[in-house]
Amino acid sequence: MDSMNGIDHAPETPTLKIKAFFESAPPLKDAAEIETKLKEFVHRNSSPENGKANRVVCVTSGGTTVPLEKRCVRYIDNFSSGHRGSASTEYFLKAGYSVIFLYRRGTCQPFCRSLPDDPLLECFTSTDDSSIQVDPSHAEVVKRAITENRSAINRGFLLKLPFTTIFEYLQILRLIAVSLRSLGPSAMFYVAAAVSDFYVPWESMTIHKIQSGSGPLDMRLAQVPKMLYVLRNEWAPTAFCISFKLETDTNILLGKADMALKKYNMHMVVANELSTRKEEVIVVTEQEKITVRRDTTQPGADVENPLIKLVVDRHSSYINHSDA
Amino acid sequence: MDSMNGIDHAPETPTLKIKAFFESAPPLKDAAEIETKLKEFVHRNSSPENGKANRVVCVTSGGTTVPLEKRCVRYIDNFSSGHRGSASTEYFLKAGYSVIFLYRRGTCQPFCRSLPDDPLLECFTSTDDSSIQVDPSHAEVVKRAITENRSAINRGFLLKLPFTTIFEYLQILRLIAVSLRSLGPSAMFYVAAAVSDFYVPWESMTIHKIQSGSGPLDMRLAQVPKMLYVLRNEWAPTAFCISFKLETDTNILLGKADMALKKYNMHMVVANELSTRKEEVIVVTEQEKITVRRDTTQPGADVENPLIKLVVDRHSSYINHSDA
Repeated sequence: MDSMNGIDHAPETPTLKIKAFFESAPPLKDAAEIETKLKEFVHRNSSPENGKANRVVCVTSGGTTVPLEKRCVRYIDNFSSGHRGSASTEYFLKAGYSVIFLYRRGTCQPFCRSLPDDPLLECFTSTDDSSIQVDPSHAEVVKRAITENRSAINRGFLLKLPFTTIFEYLQILRLIAVSLRSLGPSAMFYVAAAVSDFYVPWESMTIHKIQSGSGPLDMRLAQVPKMLYVLRNEWAPTAFCISFKLETDTNILLGKADMALKKYNMHMVVANELSTRKEEVIVVTEQEKITVRRDTTQPGADVENPLIKLVVDRHSSYINHSDA
Repeated sequence: MDSMNGIDHAPETPTLKIKAFFESAPPLKDAAEIETKLKEFVHRNSSPENGKANRVVCVTSGGTTVPLEKRCVRYIDNFSSGHRGSASTEYFLKAGYSVIFLYRRGTCQPFCRSLPDDPLLECFTSTDDSSIQVDPSHAEVVKRAITENRSAINRGFLLKLPFTTIFEYLQILRLIAVSLRSLGPSAMFYVAAAVSDFYVPWESMTIHKIQSGSGPLDMRLAQVPKMLYVLRNEWAPTAFCISFKLETDTNILLGKADMALKKYNMHMVVANELSTRKEEVIVVTEQEKITVRRDTTQPGADVENPLIKLVVDRHSSYINHSDA
């Protein structure tokens, strides 16, 4: 019987747990390049032409993976299309925010939500003289995707950073948090990514592909330390922080959201249920629970439209309160 | 401590194991639509204008997922970009084969291997009058991808069928095998997909999201029955069958490939090592072991080019031998 034992004698406080997690993580490959991009992005948004610092939000999007082998063939993944994160990014840009979009490779991109899975092959045709052209039925969405994405990137309002594993995600998130500190309460974290709860610590991971053929596979996975606590209390103590709670069981959803709000000291927790998450969410704060629904009278209206309006409004109050 | 126990008293023969697997699998959603497509495809390739049956290959590509929950939030995935399957499909089409491309959603598509990850956003720009155009640096590959893909599909030589889970993959593979039976030895199975070895049987799977917060997670995963045996011996007994063996440890690779050849009665096993798989493979047959390397004197040459030449040659011998 194969066996993978991922548990060590785990340290007890969140800070120590995270320290242990980072010490055991494989080093981030392009850390220097990411830091340079972040530095430029923050500089541009700290001193724009009008002399007033921009609001910057870090939107995380898509699911993180947990490798089961160092030369990785198998991994555990969290399902997330990236729809929430990419839609929210569009509305944040519309509201005048600059956005750092920390996304899982291959997931939904801002301005691309209405496109088919494989837009290049599905939206274009080749003509008789073998030049290519957009299918008339897709022309508008294709043009919008290309134009608005280019515009946001070229004008310096959108920085996209990809990740795959939980190790990459958390290391990049920490870099972002540290680099946004100078913006104080004007910075926001909107962590919509589906982050793995369980992982195999790198140092106890098998190097080679796990062999099948000798019966069932027993695995013991360690809990990923709760990074929200460290994000809020250590990495980004002055930023406005919004986390998400997804459940499939409505009976436990609000209780879990409330617990996350208190335990991690979040400013808002967005509670959503898997099957209705595109229709409505419940925003939980210390004072209130607000149900936010998409406008069903408008074809194609998103729940992210009213959600981001609410978030921006509460962020404004937070900034004003910090100034006072 | 959470616990998921995926093991029942498993039946012992391959046939009984597979029967149990299919009985416990969630039903395939679009089975009728897939069967109609296959029927049309096989009909077109059974009686073409020249009166001679076409050769048809089913290429499987990408990795299968194993859900850990019925309302799935988490799953185990097998890493596979789909590069091998999509490249091989191109060379099979070039060699005059019709191809059923059974691929994991989101993985590499035929004719798209040279494109960046997100071709629509990365290869196109918008001009001042807000019309869109291809970046000159990507013009050739974009044009080739669109034109050749459309041509193969419109002329009826390429049928693409997507899957995500191991349940979908094996159910569609069985539909394909049954529908290709009428082609006898002219049919080939080239199963390059990275198929899960371990899974949680559907009936013993938890319905809701597994809760974190109460310590480590213990999982016991059952072995996926070895479908290659049933494919070769029951579903497609007259077809030419090629399977793949990927390992990260070269010391065990050829032994494992040999074992697969004998155990599943394959006609060929393509052995590849994770780190060198784009440079060379070793083709294992009953009589020989042939190392196939890409032509390093040609920029951009693939190992799939000589590999498919060899496969086609051996398939011809197989057909001739069957006729005799």
